[in-house]
Amino acid sequence: MTVVEDIPARIESDTLGELKVEAGNLWGAQTQRSIENFPFSNCQMPLDVIYAQALIKKCCAKYHAQIGKLSEKKATAMQQAAEEIISGQHDKQFPLVVYQTGSGTQTNMNVNEVIANRANQILGLPFDKTGLTEEEKKAYVSPNDDVNMGQSSNDSFPTAMHIAAVRCLTTVTIPGLKVLRDALAEKVKKFENIIKIGRTHSQDATPLTLGQEFSGYLQQVEYGIERIEASIPALYRLALGGTAVGTGLNTVMGYDVAIAKAIAEETKMDFVTAPNKFEALAAHDTLIHASAALNTVAASLHKIACDVRWLGSGPRCGLGELSLPANEPGSSIMPGKVNPTQCEALTMVCAQVIGNHAAITFAGSQGPALELNVYKPVMISNLLQSATLLGQASESFAVRCISGIEANEGRIKELLHGSLMLVTALNPHIGYKNAAKIAMTAHERGATLKDTAIELGFLTAEQFDEWVVAEDMIGPKQE
Amino acid sequence: MTVVEDIPARIESDTLGELKVEAGNLWGAQTQRSIENFPFSNCQMPLDVIYAQALIKKCCAKYHAQIGKLSEKKATAMQQAAEEIISGQHDKQFPLVVYQTGSGTQTNMNVNEVIANRANQILGLPFDKTGLTEEEKKAYVSPNDDVNMGQSSNDSFPTAMHIAAVRCLTTVTIPGLKVLRDALAEKVKKFENIIKIGRTHSQDATPLTLGQEFSGYLQQVEYGIERIEASIPALYRLALGGTAVGTGLNTVMGYDVAIAKAIAEETKMDFVTAPNKFEALAAHDTLIHASAALNTVAASLHKIACDVRWLGSGPRCGLGELSLPANEPGSSIMPGKVNPTQCEALTMVCAQVIGNHAAITFAGSQGPALELNVYKPVMISNLLQSATLLGQASESFAVRCISGIEANEGRIKELLHGSLMLVTALNPHIGYKNAAKIAMTAHERGATLKDTAIELGFLTAEQFDEWVVAEDMIGPKQE
Amino acid sequence: MTVVEDIPARIESDTLGELKVEAGNLWGAQTQRSIENFPFSNCQMPLDVIYAQALIKKCCAKYHAQIGKLSEKKATAMQQAAEEIISGQHDKQFPLVVYQTGSGTQTNMNVNEVIANRANQILGLPFDKTGLTEEEKKAYVSPNDDVNMGQSSNDSFPTAMHIAAVRCLTTVTIPGLKVLRDALAEKVKKFENIIKIGRTHSQDATPLTLGQEFSGYLQQVEYGIERIEASIPALYRLALGGTAVGTGLNTVMGYDVAIAKAIAEETKMDFVTAPNKFEALAAHDTLIHASAALNTVAASLHKIACDVRWLGSGPRCGLGELSLPANEPGSSIMPGKVNPTQCEALTMVCAQVIGNHAAITFAGSQGPALELNVYKPVMISNLLQSATLLGQASESFAVRCISGIEANEGRIKELLHGSLMLVTALNPHIGYKNAAKIAMTAHERGATLKDTAIELGFLTAEQFDEWVVAEDMIGPKQE
Amino acid sequence: MTVVEDIPARIESDTLGELKVEAGNLWGAQTQRSIENFPFSNCQMPLDVIYAQALIKKCCAKYHAQIGKLSEKKATAMQQAAEEIISGQHDKQFPLVVYQTGSGTQTNMNVNEVIANRANQILGLPFDKTGLTEEEKKAYVSPNDDVNMGQSSNDSFPTAMHIAAVRCLTTVTIPGLKVLRDALAEKVKKFENIIKIGRTHSQDATPLTLGQEFSGYLQQVEYGIERIEASIPALYRLALGGTAVGTGLNTVMGYDVAIAKAIAEETKMDFVTAPNKFEALAAHDTLIHASAALNTVAASLHKIACDVRWLGSGPRCGLGELSLPANEPGSSIMPGKVNPTQCEALTMVCAQVIGNHAAITFAGSQGPALELNVYKPVMISNLLQSATLLGQASESFAVRCISGIEANEGRIKELLHGSLMLVTALNPHIGYKNAAKIAMTAHERGATLKDTAIELGFLTAEQFDEWVVAEDMIGPKQE
Repeated sequence: MTVVEDIPARIESDTLGELKVEAGNLWGAQTQRSIENFPFSNCQMPLDVIYAQALIKKCCAKYHAQIGKLSEKKATAMQQAAEEIISGQHDKQFPLVVYQTGSGTQTNMNVNEVIANRANQILGLPFDKTGLTEEEKKAYVSPNDDVNMGQSSNDSFPTAMHIAAVRCLTTVTIPGLKVLRDALAEKVKKFENIIKIGRTHSQDATPLTLGQEFSGYLQQVEYGIERIEASIPALYRLALGGTAVGTGLNTVMGYDVAIAKAIAEETKMDFVTAPNKFEALAAHDTLIHASAALNTVAASLHKIACDVRWLGSGPRCGLGELSLPANEPGSSIMPGKVNPTQCEALTMVCAQVIGNHAAITFAGSQGPALELNVYKPVMISNLLQSATLLGQASESFAVRCISGIEANEGRIKELLHGSLMLVTALNPHIGYKNAAKIAMTAHERGATLKDTAIELGFLTAEQFDEWVVAEDMIGPKQE
Repeated sequence: MTVVEDIPARIESDTLGELKVEAGNLWGAQTQRSIENFPFSNCQMPLDVIYAQALIKKCCAKYHAQIGKLSEKKATAMQQAAEEIISGQHDKQFPLVVYQTGSGTQTNMNVNEVIANRANQILGLPFDKTGLTEEEKKAYVSPNDDVNMGQSSNDSFPTAMHIAAVRCLTTVTIPGLKVLRDALAEKVKKFENIIKIGRTHSQDATPLTLGQEFSGYLQQVEYGIERIEASIPALYRLALGGTAVGTGLNTVMGYDVAIAKAIAEETKMDFVTAPNKFEALAAHDTLIHASAALNTVAASLHKIACDVRWLGSGPRCGLGELSLPANEPGSSIMPGKVNPTQCEALTMVCAQVIGNHAAITFAGSQGPALELNVYKPVMISNLLQSATLLGQASESFAVRCISGIEANEGRIKELLHGSLMLVTALNPHIGYKNAAKIAMTAHERGATLKDTAIELGFLTAEQFDEWVVAEDMIGPKQE
Repeated sequence: MTVVEDIPARIESDTLGELKVEAGNLWGAQTQRSIENFPFSNCQMPLDVIYAQALIKKCCAKYHAQIGKLSEKKATAMQQAAEEIISGQHDKQFPLVVYQTGSGTQTNMNVNEVIANRANQILGLPFDKTGLTEEEKKAYVSPNDDVNMGQSSNDSFPTAMHIAAVRCLTTVTIPGLKVLRDALAEKVKKFENIIKIGRTHSQDATPLTLGQEFSGYLQQVEYGIERIEASIPALYRLALGGTAVGTGLNTVMGYDVAIAKAIAEETKMDFVTAPNKFEALAAHDTLIHASAALNTVAASLHKIACDVRWLGSGPRCGLGELSLPANEPGSSIMPGKVNPTQCEALTMVCAQVIGNHAAITFAGSQGPALELNVYKPVMISNLLQSATLLGQASESFAVRCISGIEANEGRIKELLHGSLMLVTALNPHIGYKNAAKIAMTAHERGATLKDTAIELGFLTAEQFDEWVVAEDMIGPKQE
Repeated sequence: MTVVEDIPARIESDTLGELKVEAGNLWGAQTQRSIENFPFSNCQMPLDVIYAQALIKKCCAKYHAQIGKLSEKKATAMQQAAEEIISGQHDKQFPLVVYQTGSGTQTNMNVNEVIANRANQILGLPFDKTGLTEEEKKAYVSPNDDVNMGQSSNDSFPTAMHIAAVRCLTTVTIPGLKVLRDALAEKVKKFENIIKIGRTHSQDATPLTLGQEFSGYLQQVEYGIERIEASIPALYRLALGGTAVGTGLNTVMGYDVAIAKAIAEETKMDFVTAPNKFEALAAHDTLIHASAALNTVAASLHKIACDVRWLGSGPRCGLGELSLPANEPGSSIMPGKVNPTQCEALTMVCAQVIGNHAAITFAGSQGPALELNVYKPVMISNLLQSATLLGQASESFAVRCISGIEANEGRIKELLHGSLMLVTALNPHIGYKNAAKIAMTAHERGATLKDTAIELGFLTAEQFDEWVVAEDMIGPKQE
């Protein structure tokens, strides 16, 4: 963008007075004030929120031009400015941090100011208004009166939150999970005939197939996708039209419905106006509950990643049933070591998502909030981080771990046939107590089940061979 | 129950050996062992889980008699024993605690043992088996072979978890929330014409009606009920039929579907067999997500309770817009003090539910779990506590606080008309910057908006009276 | 106690009016009101709080008699009543629940009322005051004016919280952890010469002794005890003397110091008066931080229990390095199965403690609280539960699991010598890259390190035997 | 840095093979592999960890040169390279993310590779080794054999975690809190004579001075600083010397003590070697407990910020006792509105810190971890974020809010004298019940206490004036 080079250093002002803005920056007084008032590091407002805010401004400009409240000229310039922002041309113009006003007002004003200044630039109006008449000044796009027309930060920012959240969930989180789902589905099929020992309480249990084991993971991920999808309709409900406290002051009847429709068209997503704007400004239960879906998915993925890691433990002193792909050298000191790093990245993501959910719940529950929840930025930044990380981690885990997993069939077979829990197949024939005696005696003596069973006189070798068949133990009996 | 008096002290045994059970107790060796092995105080397994376990046993006995695997005689006695448990006649026979085996095995065995012993009592079989032949012993109901037939703790206990959870959510939580919803709805209507000052960031904002303010609360509660209801279909999916590791070993084809149907009939609830038993044993994402709904509701209610408390703050040095019912003397030292105690009980419940959700999430996410999640008891006990407390607190808050709230209309009017934020109505007429100048000048001078506006020359008294009308500020403009 | 039989049904009254109290109950109107106003199940206020409250009343009665504000006669009766409560004679007289007023006022009044009524009974004054003159009524002990003298719930209840917390931490939590520490210390010694394979990332790593491995657990528990001990001095600081808002209104100079000293003498613990009473009433950061110590200990114990469980996994298809004690039959369906149930009980306790910490943090952080935190009961009930469960679980885990652990030396040796990570010993001799080549080649070929190393030409058999010695790999090199 | 321009595109290799590294980058194969394997956005490893890693490398190079294991020439170049990193000259060379191997191995290798390549550059050795003899290659600094000498990621990374944590806590968090402490202390003094109404349960209570109220906040912050300081000694204990699993394999006796001393000298901080390296690698309870201190401080600050916000609520329809500084226009729609934005930024920081603590606790508690906790990066990144945000927010809140607070004495006086709770002063004179009657009657009638008291006949006007004196109610009575 050569645009930036045209922007002079200048004095900007707001209702509290004047401030200096350095050359190259499109923002105005309130943005500048926020930079100075909130000196926090490494916590920039996510660009997805900025883009969503710009989208809102674009829709509002168009709408207000249509109903005659804004000149076509101004509206066109404002829309162009908004589009430039959305396309990523002005990313550096949004330096504000998450820890600012709890309503996101400064970020809303940052967008208002950048759009106003950029629109004025497009309109060929000089930054320096010295000597202009009041009439001439009216040609300028105003951040508050024009760009923010029909909005308050209080409804505009939560609308941006919902738009950003839906986009992230639908373009990052769910697609990532679907990649994982598909990778698991492939393994379910591939492993369907590999019979292995089951484990409960970390102890040997009755057998199942490796495909059945993976089908549990697949089911978890499928339900997880459903849970996230189920959280989206509530996010479609937009606060816009509530303005300052939910009443819609300074808007006209029908505006809320129309503007939600415009946003829906622009995004090709099913956004609608929230039926109750008071709730939409004062509470963000919707974000808590979207985060809850991510929290549940994090719990699922944590369990799966831990399982996979342990099934792949070894190579010689662990379970060793699976071989995980070797993506990088595992140790800076132990030569030849290969670690389940994708599992570890994923489990760390899960820990973060679970922590973020705690932060979001805390932030969403606070009162007295009366007409406005004032933890908006911290809620959306955590939600977007959780949604992004889960999506990216799921895909990476699928591609770099699950897909490359190989079953060590020799090892699996060896463990299966050494196990004592095949004895469970004897319950219907000799009763739980007798079967227990066989297993416990075999364990004490380090003997096989079969030898022990015969020796204890509970059955014959033939009966054992007929009754204890791993292949018959992986499902209910066909009657 | 005189039954108890008939029970002698005796020696019971399991596969690990013999133990003494004191007179009056129906349980057996494994229950006794658990009492001795898990000496934790104040954390008994919730009776709702016991009742659900007994219900499962009843259905299983009936089913197995029908398919001829169990004698009618035994089955009938077992069903009677189960029914006695369900009706609360044997509550003292279930002394085990939450912190036991992570599969709930001891509780499952406790139910198995009590049903077996009670059934044998019903069948007229003496506790003392000394001198009986093996054949005579076969007349006895066995805890493992008969009562636990077609089950493992691994599928039976999580089935009980789901049954107990659905019952609690549908009979305590949702009804309690509906009482609150109705109480709020009544206030929305009653307060629909009371215009009051809005507050955002704890600062005066533009007006709304008290009914609108309460409509936000109502909307939160309505969505909360929906969220809980949405969590129930997943809970309808029962693990039973998976037995030890999800394969259904030692069951017959069709058993899982049939037994879920039997449970559905017995409970008159839409239970079905889980499509994937591996997931149903190894992961309890379903409980995490049910808890998540409660967590979101807790966040909602916390906000509402805090709001109500502050709107009722005073009586003389607070906001004082609402009068809350005086349910008890508020202070042991300050005479005449009345406190918002229902708000406080509710907010403490919310804190607990949010903490319980953290515990449930932690417990549900742990791995390597492989074929079995082993945090089952701690998950269900937290879920039931959250569900019960939220339901009870919602109802109590509705009945003892919300319903009795009175609006202090004089105070509300006084605050409304003193506010500076009515100035917002001037934005469309004189612009944001000029309106801001009026508000800030009036604030500095301690003057009224009207006087200041006129003095600053932005408008006439007539214009002010025409434009600044609180009644016109509580909704969008009719075009 | 035959006392109860003497208590008639009667009408009690408080500043809001009259209520009926059933026969057999010592409590008065405010307790009765609370029973009716807070209908929550399974959440009784912990008796430890009641006992601590009674102790405070005893000390106050004594103090006020000494300074002449209370008659010796009344004071003596009140002290006797308090002592009866402390010794557990009146447990049924404290039916109130956690979810009440956030200051614990109702519980404070419950104690006041029971002491007053019991003292009056001791003094031979009939419950029925009908027909008594005002002068005659003055002989009665009053719950507010006498038992609560020099106190508000606002300082009395948090004082009870601190006393109950210190007692629980010092008599349950720390002793339980010390039993665990000692059991671990014994194993550290016992296992000091057993060399085994180490595992990092669940993958085979370089060797260490089993004693070294357990020394890490021991160190965690030792630090945990220190962390809990470090949280106690802050709990020694008592709020008493702050009365309603921290100013000490209606007390006399020196009272706060004297009453803390009296409590210290009575409890033989180092209680002192809090230097700032405003903080002591309005914030319970001290409880949050005591809970934080428990939270950290829970994290430690969770890690340890999971480790022990996996080292004991098997018996045939797991790591199998340890044999854990068989405390009960492990499965209702799998005969002969023995599960690490003490590990599971402990890990469930850890999940609960971590959740409770979230609840306590939430409750302690809420504002605007101004002069009083109003989440007191939920904070102390969670803290006491965490402290109790951790202490009990630690002791049970020590006694029923750690102490009975046996090392399976054959299995340990077999795994050690099959491992590839002994290759690390070659780094200083042939460099990381060459060593890695040996390990990776051996892994691919399923060959031994030695054969592979020689075949690849990096060293001779003699060099291998000299350099790769597990016994030399369990510590730094002696130079 | 013109250095970068000299770096050619090239092929780098590690034990898994070759990769292309683009021109301008100093890193090697493992870093490049990590970039490709962990495609996560917005979650870079904090530079503070990188700097601490580089410091360790510097100390190790120096140490190994001293004991003759490393040539002076290599060591000098390595130290220079490390110093350049520490001084921020190579920040762009550390592109790796938090979500990688759980041991931080890739980041350790990133530092190893950059130091090696930069050292070789300093030594004048070309990147291209084509055609070099094995002997010539030995002149090159090796990332594993030289830079990582005497280390594993497993001990080096947690050592860096501790160094980074201590630095952040001591240079950002504690200084920020001390600025807040001092700002509060100033207000305590300034407000010491302003008597105001107290509030408990959000209801009017007995009076205190505004200075007393602020003294509670001051006390909370002072204790908070103590809590953080108390968490530091444990962080001084360094893992370095444990290498792969805690045994110190491939190091020499005394190395651990010497290297900790070197780090202590370099940082001028009291670092020492950890007494038990097994604990130091396998568990990070120390980080959990440092986070716990931040969690408690977050709870404190959240309460304080909420209080200040509500004391400053209004300006006309709230409590209005305080005027908070007006730092920016508060609303994009409501002209003249000024919001407590510093309070809001701070409360959002608190929510984040509380969520981060949940993530850290989760990550630190996971098992089976055996010899290595593998959530290291997510633990340290959360801790550093919490520590940084709390420090920055405390300072900003102090400077931009607390310091500028003005007491609205007129409003404070008006509220004080209208309050009914001054009645508490009558308890010792006429008893709680009579005093309550006065307060409740005055409330009902909207009358003053004095008029009501006299009218009810409990006292004379003179007695009222003598007994009910706010100035006498702000402390214990001088006897």
